[in-house]
Amino acid sequence: MPGPLTLGQIAARLGGRVAGDPTTTVRQVGSLEQALAGEITFFSSPRYQAKLAQTHASAVVLAPESEALTALPRIVCDAPYLYFARLSQLFNPLTVQPEGVHPSAVVSPGARLGARVSIGAGCVIGDEVSIGDDSCLYPRVVVYAKCSLGKRVIVHSGAVIGADGFGLAQDEASRWVKIPQIGGVRIGDDVEIGANTTIDRGAMDDTIIEEGVKLDNQIQIGHNVRIGAHTAMAGCAGVAGSADIGRHCTIGGAAVILGHLTLADHVHISAATVISRSIRRPGTYTGVFPFDDHESWTRNTALVRRLADLAERLRVLERKEKKSG
Amino acid sequence: MPGPLTLGQIAARLGGRVAGDPTTTVRQVGSLEQALAGEITFFSSPRYQAKLAQTHASAVVLAPESEALTALPRIVCDAPYLYFARLSQLFNPLTVQPEGVHPSAVVSPGARLGARVSIGAGCVIGDEVSIGDDSCLYPRVVVYAKCSLGKRVIVHSGAVIGADGFGLAQDEASRWVKIPQIGGVRIGDDVEIGANTTIDRGAMDDTIIEEGVKLDNQIQIGHNVRIGAHTAMAGCAGVAGSADIGRHCTIGGAAVILGHLTLADHVHISAATVISRSIRRPGTYTGVFPFDDHESWTRNTALVRRLADLAERLRVLERKEKKSG
Amino acid sequence: MPGPLTLGQIAARLGGRVAGDPTTTVRQVGSLEQALAGEITFFSSPRYQAKLAQTHASAVVLAPESEALTALPRIVCDAPYLYFARLSQLFNPLTVQPEGVHPSAVVSPGARLGARVSIGAGCVIGDEVSIGDDSCLYPRVVVYAKCSLGKRVIVHSGAVIGADGFGLAQDEASRWVKIPQIGGVRIGDDVEIGANTTIDRGAMDDTIIEEGVKLDNQIQIGHNVRIGAHTAMAGCAGVAGSADIGRHCTIGGAAVILGHLTLADHVHISAATVISRSIRRPGTYTGVFPFDDHESWTRNTALVRRLADLAERLRVLERKEKKSG
Repeated sequence: MPGPLTLGQIAARLGGRVAGDPTTTVRQVGSLEQALAGEITFFSSPRYQAKLAQTHASAVVLAPESEALTALPRIVCDAPYLYFARLSQLFNPLTVQPEGVHPSAVVSPGARLGARVSIGAGCVIGDEVSIGDDSCLYPRVVVYAKCSLGKRVIVHSGAVIGADGFGLAQDEASRWVKIPQIGGVRIGDDVEIGANTTIDRGAMDDTIIEEGVKLDNQIQIGHNVRIGAHTAMAGCAGVAGSADIGRHCTIGGAAVILGHLTLADHVHISAATVISRSIRRPGTYTGVFPFDDHESWTRNTALVRRLADLAERLRVLERKEKKSG
Repeated sequence: MPGPLTLGQIAARLGGRVAGDPTTTVRQVGSLEQALAGEITFFSSPRYQAKLAQTHASAVVLAPESEALTALPRIVCDAPYLYFARLSQLFNPLTVQPEGVHPSAVVSPGARLGARVSIGAGCVIGDEVSIGDDSCLYPRVVVYAKCSLGKRVIVHSGAVIGADGFGLAQDEASRWVKIPQIGGVRIGDDVEIGANTTIDRGAMDDTIIEEGVKLDNQIQIGHNVRIGAHTAMAGCAGVAGSADIGRHCTIGGAAVILGHLTLADHVHISAATVISRSIRRPGTYTGVFPFDDHESWTRNTALVRRLADLAERLRVLERKEKKSG
Repeated sequence: MPGPLTLGQIAARLGGRVAGDPTTTVRQVGSLEQALAGEITFFSSPRYQAKLAQTHASAVVLAPESEALTALPRIVCDAPYLYFARLSQLFNPLTVQPEGVHPSAVVSPGARLGARVSIGAGCVIGDEVSIGDDSCLYPRVVVYAKCSLGKRVIVHSGAVIGADGFGLAQDEASRWVKIPQIGGVRIGDDVEIGANTTIDRGAMDDTIIEEGVKLDNQIQIGHNVRIGAHTAMAGCAGVAGSADIGRHCTIGGAAVILGHLTLADHVHISAATVISRSIRRPGTYTGVFPFDDHESWTRNTALVRRLADLAERLRVLERKEKKSG
């Protein structure tokens, strides 16, 4: 990582226009509230204007329309948040674990590790696993046999890749008979997988996570799911078996996608929404029961279970009104 | 595992009737879409008829009513999915980890392991734990002290059995006082537990998972829960403390069962449904807020919070209509 | 831990009044149903009166209004459940793992461990981590670099503290650009963290869990969240990034708190409720779609999506009625 940079040097690398002193030197990024002198922050929304006025940062990244809101040295650019992401990458590594295999990790002799791969303490890498160049597995990741990870994949602690899918048939006595899960998991390049997330191996074919997908913590991906490239899913989301999610989708936290559904590309699911049928058109979809103070909720929610009755009574009134009208 | 088998040999072992050449040889199972020559697939639903027509499999398992849909060699049987499960077990082991204790596992000297038990890398088995014959714990499972697992139990990576239940009392200053959790966890024979699932030890008595129960990934079972035999729960479901779930139930993914409830045998809870009171009768129960495009949802959901008002206005109209009618 | 105690000795230590023979000796706590002779149980609710009549316990802790319900030797006190928690602590340790670092744990040389800290098998403690006196980490906990835990903190197996927050910007081609997560996690004294719970490090500033907070299993805490002192969250709850939760709150199981919200002190969120806007006033808040038998649900839920239409039809009727009335 480079040491301090001037705003001029930053703009030369990342673009944008410097307003104010281009020799201003910064050595790290910081938040509006807690940035110290020598740090550079960013301003993305007018609702943080009061915080901008009080920041101790030495410089700010902001959009042209906000340029006049501060007298601090600043970098003006069209997409301040994206700019800031790249700027932070100048000062900070994307992963913080040294390359190589930690001595406490258990890597099967039949696994293939690419160049500069980092395998953290306590990881367990099964037979015939392949992991692409520059990937980083933080401590205590398990990859079951016959799964593959692309290049530059980041996997956080506690994630489990390739455990058996939940495949069961019922016998004559209603006992469950396990269906061996003989597919694998294929994970593309530039995927990130959060802590304690689980991705099941396929029943027969593979479970597929395409390139650029970002999965937050504690996500559950069932067997034979496909997640299209550059889709992002927030924490605690769950995807049931054989769901097929398109590219460039976003799935909100704790959302649930039922099995055997198809979501088109560019579909956006709000947090905590349950998707129970396929979605063929791009757009934003939501289904959350609104919260209320407990007493109001009790009153209103009882009526949800009587909606069919209310609708029928309304219909009766309409009919009478029509007759008499 | 056996090598290739003819359809005739398979039918001799598992039953069913061969239609077409009984000397057809298969060596593995495969999906309709991706099976190769030499593999046997299954056909379970008319909606996959186009896939059946295009499959490269060498043989198919199907029901009598579908027998005429293909000219491929086939095994005709009443429950093709169950048949296929057993067929797949002929070609594939139920667990893929060699027996014995991996050198990196930490097994307390006070633990008792049955015959042919397999303990994967990084597992931690506490004191006075007992694990029955032929059980398989995949890497990085933790079993706290004084828990017992039956025979043929499969536990996937990251599962935690016997952590403290969430037992707290509040003191005079509204601080939490921990209640020691001195019960254990008792798990019956033929139970399977998914990756990163957690099953808490009891507060005083034990938490009980009866024989044949199947738990998918990332399920949370609170202290003193009892799950009746042959019940299956899909991923991300949660069961709060002291709930008593019957036998042969199915609990959908991400469903939530609140504490101190009783569910009768043969109760089926749909995915993402919250069960807030006991259910005494077998049946299927559902409670999911329907998703919609975001704008429609916004419009309709606002009215949910005004349902009591709508119902009152309807009542007023009905009263007036009655008077005037 | 002490051996057997008489009721008189217990009352001398913990308060309360003994009714019946104060020399009655007990050596452990037990439930109403399963307590054996020599054990002491507690009675907290009239609905367990039948169980009280049948208990084999040698003594009971109960409130003054229940004193007459049993002839057993008893300790009468105002808050029996709290009393019982403290009583159980007399007989049972709060944590059951010996102090010291298990040889299979990987503790960075740059980590600082307080006095009497217990680090279980397979734990991984990163660089510049500090852990306060008397804290106990059960097996397979990961603490990423630069996180701090206070005194008497208990962390259960599989928990991951300090993995990267989910910080992403989108580039011109709608690919995700990772924002380095350079904040830490600060955890106060007397916090307990459940199995497989994940607490992300901050994007720039720290994620903060204040003293006395109790987190159950499989909870997800996003980056830059603050959880106020003495708040308790039940299993499977999720808190999205930058949410600010007050002191002395309770968050029910599987509840979801969206990001960038503020919850006042003493707010209580019911299980499985989704909080989508800030709550400024203490109170109890709920938002759960009521479950029903599947057929009723199907009928009623279809109408939820037509509520705006129903409301409009009601309005039309009201208008007509007014005109004609």
